[in-house]
Amino acid sequence: MDEPAFIAALRALASHPAARGLADDAAVLGDLVLTHDMLVEGVHYLPGDPPADVAWKLLAVNLSDLAAKGAVPLGVLVGYMLGDEAWDRAFLDGLGEALAAYAVPLLGGDTVKGPGVRALGLTALGRASIAPARAGARAGDGLWVAGTIGDAGLGLAIAQAGEGPPELLRAYRRPRPLLVEGRALAPHVHAMMDVSDGLLIDVARMAEASGLAVTIDLAAMPRSAAARAFAGDDRAARLAAATAGDDYALLFAASGEGVATSGVGAIRVGTFAEGRGVSLRDGAATVPLPARLGYQHG
Amino acid sequence: MDEPAFIAALRALASHPAARGLADDAAVLGDLVLTHDMLVEGVHYLPGDPPADVAWKLLAVNLSDLAAKGAVPLGVLVGYMLGDEAWDRAFLDGLGEALAAYAVPLLGGDTVKGPGVRALGLTALGRASIAPARAGARAGDGLWVAGTIGDAGLGLAIAQAGEGPPELLRAYRRPRPLLVEGRALAPHVHAMMDVSDGLLIDVARMAEASGLAVTIDLAAMPRSAAARAFAGDDRAARLAAATAGDDYALLFAASGEGVATSGVGAIRVGTFAEGRGVSLRDGAATVPLPARLGYQHG
Repeated sequence: MDEPAFIAALRALASHPAARGLADDAAVLGDLVLTHDMLVEGVHYLPGDPPADVAWKLLAVNLSDLAAKGAVPLGVLVGYMLGDEAWDRAFLDGLGEALAAYAVPLLGGDTVKGPGVRALGLTALGRASIAPARAGARAGDGLWVAGTIGDAGLGLAIAQAGEGPPELLRAYRRPRPLLVEGRALAPHVHAMMDVSDGLLIDVARMAEASGLAVTIDLAAMPRSAAARAFAGDDRAARLAAATAGDDYALLFAASGEGVATSGVGAIRVGTFAEGRGVSLRDGAATVPLPARLGYQHG
Repeated sequence: MDEPAFIAALRALASHPAARGLADDAAVLGDLVLTHDMLVEGVHYLPGDPPADVAWKLLAVNLSDLAAKGAVPLGVLVGYMLGDEAWDRAFLDGLGEALAAYAVPLLGGDTVKGPGVRALGLTALGRASIAPARAGARAGDGLWVAGTIGDAGLGLAIAQAGEGPPELLRAYRRPRPLLVEGRALAPHVHAMMDVSDGLLIDVARMAEASGLAVTIDLAAMPRSAAARAFAGDDRAARLAAATAGDDYALLFAASGEGVATSGVGAIRVGTFAEGRGVSLRDGAATVPLPARLGYQHG
């Protein structure tokens, strides 16, 4: 039973409609939105990453799931595995800073000792009057992105290799959950999710969940000035950005009018249409889909 | 920064009233009750414990926290670390069985790969109109127990040594959260918690949180017929039971009239009084407090 098989079996257990088939960013139970994401040392963060940044990321990835459902955070519970004491202390400092930055109350959790690598968990609870699903895009909808794509992937490379602009490293280590944007967008979109595993793979998931085809234009993809200056702006750089993870931008399906009404400055990167599958272009050129669309679990 | 220092620092971050100072079984936010407990291999369960039982326990310990707040479970999120595939499959079977036994929906969670020992987390969400705190006992209140004390401690010894009655082993491996009892009691008690670390240490915590003294009578403590037959019924056996963990009985402070009104068959094991500290007796005899009151974190 590999990871996909395990998740399929878990999905069979999650038959309650609030679970959304475990295929969404979060569970939606009435007006409550719940998510739980874990970070494992060496898997989701580098052993050398500053502990305060790991705390920030643990909160941010969960708040990003709430953002994608248009939810206001009500509070979080932390599952913490103790280890090196200086690391623990620095983690707490970062957690306090991140909780304060997003005005999110720490409500509870558990602290354990473990002999292995650290595994950290965080549960975020939020409230949303309208929580858009991943499924729900309509043929003719635009595919839109709020936030930038590819900064965190470059930041990861910088964390590993040690050279590069600090704002890119920061995008990897201290991602910003787009809570305000998610709330403003939620009433005006047909589908929404956050980009955690890579733009292409996450777009493919939204199209698949919505039973539609989608076309993405790499040239339209929002990339930061720092990313373009550091990694260039040719097709290879765009493809690298479109398949890199950890950006926590918001991806959504909506009409242009809906986006204008939301007031969020989002960028249109594609179009949904009847059919199945993902087509890629780069301005006027048709581009074959890369073999790897992003981070794939399992 | 050892575990108590870490928890003290975490408590300083948890200033929202819903967090109850991280000193309760669960967070209480309006009518929502939230808890997150982790199980770590080799720490909270034995590597040789059947994986289906570990799944049961992961759910049960969290539902027990909801029970102690009189909450109806609304759903759970699971944080799962993949490992050996046969173990994963058996865990899922047990999780499905436990969810069905308590009619609790699986709403979401996260699945990760980790190179170390397994760390598993579960968040339970419940709803309660009245959620009694740990603090709140009044001088003159009886100290009561619903459920039995000491079975799980004997079950742990049996799991380690391999010989003994299956019902005691089952009490350790498949604890029963007292959800029905907790709901019936909640409107009629002044304070309530579950017994997870040992009767004496948990009674001491309730008395401390309530700013009161308490007297416990070992002879009154409810022990199962199986425990008495297996371990005897002398003072040493009673003290062992009173300091063993993992029972998930409910402990509460109430008047006799309150308990009678609740309809729950609970046993009175002591009395709260003005003052501080825990006094122990065994029938007519005064008994010195043992050095170890139960499982102490850190």
